[in-house]
Amino acid sequence: MLINGLPGESISAADRGLMYGDGVFRTMRLLDRRIVHWSHHYRKLQQDCSALLLPCPDARLLETEIEQLAWEQPDGVVRLTLTRGIGPRGYAPPAAVHPTRLLSLSPLPASNAAWVEQGVRLYLCELRMSAQLRLAGVKHLNRLENVLAAAEWNDPAIAEGLLRDEAGRVIGGVRSNLFCWHGGVLLTPDLSRCGVAGVQRQRILEWALHSGQPLEVRELPLDEVLAAEEVFVCNSVFGLWPVRELAGRSWLAFPRTRALAAALEALP
Amino acid sequence: MLINGLPGESISAADRGLMYGDGVFRTMRLLDRRIVHWSHHYRKLQQDCSALLLPCPDARLLETEIEQLAWEQPDGVVRLTLTRGIGPRGYAPPAAVHPTRLLSLSPLPASNAAWVEQGVRLYLCELRMSAQLRLAGVKHLNRLENVLAAAEWNDPAIAEGLLRDEAGRVIGGVRSNLFCWHGGVLLTPDLSRCGVAGVQRQRILEWALHSGQPLEVRELPLDEVLAAEEVFVCNSVFGLWPVRELAGRSWLAFPRTRALAAALEALP
Repeated sequence: MLINGLPGESISAADRGLMYGDGVFRTMRLLDRRIVHWSHHYRKLQQDCSALLLPCPDARLLETEIEQLAWEQPDGVVRLTLTRGIGPRGYAPPAAVHPTRLLSLSPLPASNAAWVEQGVRLYLCELRMSAQLRLAGVKHLNRLENVLAAAEWNDPAIAEGLLRDEAGRVIGGVRSNLFCWHGGVLLTPDLSRCGVAGVQRQRILEWALHSGQPLEVRELPLDEVLAAEEVFVCNSVFGLWPVRELAGRSWLAFPRTRALAAALEALP
Repeated sequence: MLINGLPGESISAADRGLMYGDGVFRTMRLLDRRIVHWSHHYRKLQQDCSALLLPCPDARLLETEIEQLAWEQPDGVVRLTLTRGIGPRGYAPPAAVHPTRLLSLSPLPASNAAWVEQGVRLYLCELRMSAQLRLAGVKHLNRLENVLAAAEWNDPAIAEGLLRDEAGRVIGGVRSNLFCWHGGVLLTPDLSRCGVAGVQRQRILEWALHSGQPLEVRELPLDEVLAAEEVFVCNSVFGLWPVRELAGRSWLAFPRTRALAAALEALP
């Protein structure tokens, strides 16, 4: 682990990341000592910092530190956490901010290959996501909703949970974004009120725009997901998981999702 | 500062308090080496832990540690933070939880006496609080809404900001609860959808019930606050601050708020 560029294991207990969850993070796939889709991740980091009025570190600085971190272990999952640093007690951000940068590397979870191949079961979470226009889409450190939703099931055969908003509209997975195919159209929930807009989702939206794939980003009722021809969830670590079971509905084949996964692989 | 009972300054960077804001906290007044209204604070800590499915430490353990912390400095503000401890990457709480306990002591802010005497100006925040039934009322570590609201003004003459929900209803102060007096009735917002239900608020509700003071805990439109005879904000550190200015409206005298403050002083 690197903390502000130096090997370390601990941070100040007065860090605002701990005091208030005042910061953002990225979870990224490391492959052959490089972050997969780094330019997307850095752009998203800039956007998220901007939403929190937080200065974003220079890309070159982060790249150098990631190289250093990857020296002994070239593959895995890198988590980059950026907080508003140490400050006096009180919610108001201090006048002079010295952000804390944390980079940690862990092994890729073992279950990944089977779920890509066979598809996954989704648990329908009871918890409803709250709407906050200032934070919607941002991957910030206030993740108690995700924690409480993930605590709703503990069957290791269930890969992911499905989150809805207060009105029952589908928002995404607990740690992923959701798409479905419906009559030739690719559908994904609008995340302007809640949820996290991930980098893999962004890549799929860009692919759809460039390839001419009909696309709708809008409110998505659960019934429409259950009526879809295919459903998948995605994130930057596991890629795409076809959904084979959700709320009593089963899907058996995933040809469009497989084709999309191949198309994404071929992109730079 | 004490961390799990030992003097220390730092916590593990893998602590879920930092990773996800997965924990709760209390901000308490220390006076003559004792926490003011400790039994209320401990009861609230138990409730908040329960909302987060977090084991609550024994009261006697916390009392012993607070005595130790107060040895050299008998007065000030104590912050108790409790997190779900260190865990592997991933939102789901680990099967075996070893919570992290942090206790820190800081001096009482200097501005306090003047604001109690003269009343305070409230800034009307633009940010709207989101509704989350599972977290409403709980003083958890996901405080980005408070941080962004507190960043909206930086005039040191403005003591506090006023928070509203998406529908424009008044929820409270950024770091306090709000009450107003209207035709002999004491009014305070219902916090079952958002906000933090503080210990000072709880004491006032108990006082009203025991003294026969007419009380309404319900949805509170801004117009009704502006039409009130008196308004005040409260928390465990500063006590009660009468409001003398909000959104163009001024208040000049605070007889009922003064009487309430005196009545609360007299309570055990």
